[in-house]
Amino acid sequence: MPLSGFPELLPAQRGAELAVIDHLRSVFELHGFASIETRVVEPLDQLVKGGEIDKEIYVLRRLQADDEASDSGLGMHYDLTVPFARYVLENAGKLEFPFRRYQIQKAWRGERPQEGRFREFTQADIDVVGKDVLPFHYDVEVARVMAAALVALPLPPLSMQVNNRKIIEGFLRGIGAPDRSAAMRVIDKLDKVSATAVAALLVSEAGMDEAQAHRCLELAAIRTSDTSFVDKVHALGVEHELLDAGLDELAAVIGGCAASMSEGFRVEANLRIARGLDYYTGTVFEIFMTGYEFLKSVGAGGRYDALARDGATTYPGVGISFGVSRTLVPLFQRGSLTGSRAVPSAVLVALADEQSRPASDAVAEQLRARGIATEVAAEPQKYGRQIRYADRRGIPFVWFPAGDGSGDEVKDIRSGDQVPADVASWQPPAADLRPRVVSAALPEEQDP
Amino acid sequence: MPLSGFPELLPAQRGAELAVIDHLRSVFELHGFASIETRVVEPLDQLVKGGEIDKEIYVLRRLQADDEASDSGLGMHYDLTVPFARYVLENAGKLEFPFRRYQIQKAWRGERPQEGRFREFTQADIDVVGKDVLPFHYDVEVARVMAAALVALPLPPLSMQVNNRKIIEGFLRGIGAPDRSAAMRVIDKLDKVSATAVAALLVSEAGMDEAQAHRCLELAAIRTSDTSFVDKVHALGVEHELLDAGLDELAAVIGGCAASMSEGFRVEANLRIARGLDYYTGTVFEIFMTGYEFLKSVGAGGRYDALARDGATTYPGVGISFGVSRTLVPLFQRGSLTGSRAVPSAVLVALADEQSRPASDAVAEQLRARGIATEVAAEPQKYGRQIRYADRRGIPFVWFPAGDGSGDEVKDIRSGDQVPADVASWQPPAADLRPRVVSAALPEEQDP
Repeated sequence: MPLSGFPELLPAQRGAELAVIDHLRSVFELHGFASIETRVVEPLDQLVKGGEIDKEIYVLRRLQADDEASDSGLGMHYDLTVPFARYVLENAGKLEFPFRRYQIQKAWRGERPQEGRFREFTQADIDVVGKDVLPFHYDVEVARVMAAALVALPLPPLSMQVNNRKIIEGFLRGIGAPDRSAAMRVIDKLDKVSATAVAALLVSEAGMDEAQAHRCLELAAIRTSDTSFVDKVHALGVEHELLDAGLDELAAVIGGCAASMSEGFRVEANLRIARGLDYYTGTVFEIFMTGYEFLKSVGAGGRYDALARDGATTYPGVGISFGVSRTLVPLFQRGSLTGSRAVPSAVLVALADEQSRPASDAVAEQLRARGIATEVAAEPQKYGRQIRYADRRGIPFVWFPAGDGSGDEVKDIRSGDQVPADVASWQPPAADLRPRVVSAALPEEQDP
Repeated sequence: MPLSGFPELLPAQRGAELAVIDHLRSVFELHGFASIETRVVEPLDQLVKGGEIDKEIYVLRRLQADDEASDSGLGMHYDLTVPFARYVLENAGKLEFPFRRYQIQKAWRGERPQEGRFREFTQADIDVVGKDVLPFHYDVEVARVMAAALVALPLPPLSMQVNNRKIIEGFLRGIGAPDRSAAMRVIDKLDKVSATAVAALLVSEAGMDEAQAHRCLELAAIRTSDTSFVDKVHALGVEHELLDAGLDELAAVIGGCAASMSEGFRVEANLRIARGLDYYTGTVFEIFMTGYEFLKSVGAGGRYDALARDGATTYPGVGISFGVSRTLVPLFQRGSLTGSRAVPSAVLVALADEQSRPASDAVAEQLRARGIATEVAAEPQKYGRQIRYADRRGIPFVWFPAGDGSGDEVKDIRSGDQVPADVASWQPPAADLRPRVVSAALPEEQDP
């Protein structure tokens, strides 16, 4: 029985998910990010104090232990940041800093499931963490790496929206806002309530006058896909050195991602992105998917001055997390994304009779040795039934061994074309070699 | 703090684990096995009734739910077979049978940790499952596929030991054993107690006379790496049609794996392998690692006539599970296996000064576009320090951009050789392109 919030995929969908994960891995690794995997459990006290406090954590108890000993004191991680911070502290003496890592793993939250919000879900995180210091250029690097990874995926258009907490902080200081952290929390509500309501809250909850509230809204309305936001902010006439520092950093991130922009992937400066969480201190990211705004962000991240802390040593970091399940599962469920076939096999080797199985096996071995995924027919049925066997699985080619080592033929079952083929050299078209991610019925569809 | 039984790997070790997993995946996929991933939890009643009964299961409770609602009724899976059987039943209408799947995933057991026995561990399973029927040739196929996957790994020598329950069952019938299932359980103890003790138990617990017990031990002593076991069994003079059927099947499996044998990987008929579990009905497998016999088997599997059952429909299956953590973690812990470097990067691009970062980034982008994992130096330190930065991470090459687009040089930091190089065509040796699995201090080491 399916369990609500624990999505499982059919083989073709899982093939598409794996292709996406393999692609992300490949881009991360090309940029020197090392894989780590952490255990799925952490001591409960670490989980409760880390990050957001409204998460519902799954706690583990051993079934057969007696009552007293049954509670393990362990909970399942709800993100990959808390375990990564613990891993860094635990292995600090054995890691080289700055340490670039990627982590593609499941996490769990016991919350009420909604579309795109699951109890079990896969995330893909990249982070760079330094010891005591971490140069700013890593903010640009993680943005570029994630952009390079996402731009090539056949998804609905994505936009990575970037801001810098120093801009908001400096601007609030510049206008003399009386309670900056209340103001930050209120600005963060702009995606939920109207600008008018936010203005009222800035007055009632953050102690601003109406002029200050108005200027905040002017700042938050700035959104550009190039570095023109800098002039727009300057035009508001607010001065503060922290504001200038933030504008410089944000311009570097937006400029650094320019080469990754395409119709399907935009990087934008969006000055309303506040990321209410206290631990972000500079760059902040949120990623959205066009047409799927109800999912809210499908990725997020930013710069924290102290990802972890151990006595006198701090570990600053910057990273971005991409929600693999949050993005893919709704697309699978709507049928707008799938895999091109349910099996890895590009070729089915037909079987004339059970006695010729070794000959068909030998053909398959030769094709596999050249990297072509191949299976042999289950039974020596009539060839028409063997072709239907391939067709039902989406296997594009059926190979007919001649039996005497020469005169083999291969049929493309989509076109029906059957041609002579040499097992030592025949190659399927590159597009047929592996299952592909296929996007269907997306209004904005484009070539991956 | 490390948690006993929840092993975590350093980046170089994780790189080696990933290389092993990628290799297994690649072999499984070349043979047409499709990946599936199941949720990590199952309803507790399903877990308790499936398979072995001595497992300690982790049960989930939600932290913030009130007492009554906090127990989720869910437990974490302790193997990949129970969830696979459930997945097959749940999706039977959407799967094509025979269904070949591989599943490389973690499982959890709340048992007391020992070396090689973890509370969290990764397994790699392949199974073929049919609807109502599954031809015997799939027993040969799963053995060959697992053999093809394992033979290429740089591990201590492995042996896959194979038997067939029909041989034991037929032999016991042939000698007129009074209590065959008690006899099977006793024979299964041969790896723990002496042959004399087993003979005594066959008399006292399985009701045999001494002659019968003696013949059982003669059968169980037969072990060959080719099909000569057939004659040895015939020489014992016991006749039964089930025995003959089992001998034919086992000979087919051993013969079918002959091409995968090497010094580092043996396939043997071992007639003492009984696999006490009731659900095995034909072929049974156990995999052992030389020098690591204390781990007991590092893999196991077999044929079951009913992997799953749904009303009138049964789903017979045959499969093998390989213990990835059980095999690799003890090797990592002893330092006899690791990865060749801690990062994917093959090249570090040096940085003359911070102003030339865009030029160094451009070199890196060109190398990455040709599949060469590359990172750029963190800071424009003296070149000697940048070389040490590469050395500490195991990055074999440092690239020195000339700055004017020509005259770049690349240094192999192991030999110290520095030569002119063209960013559009330079290629590292194939062995340096990706981190490799390195086995050290293994007496029987060989080329992977």
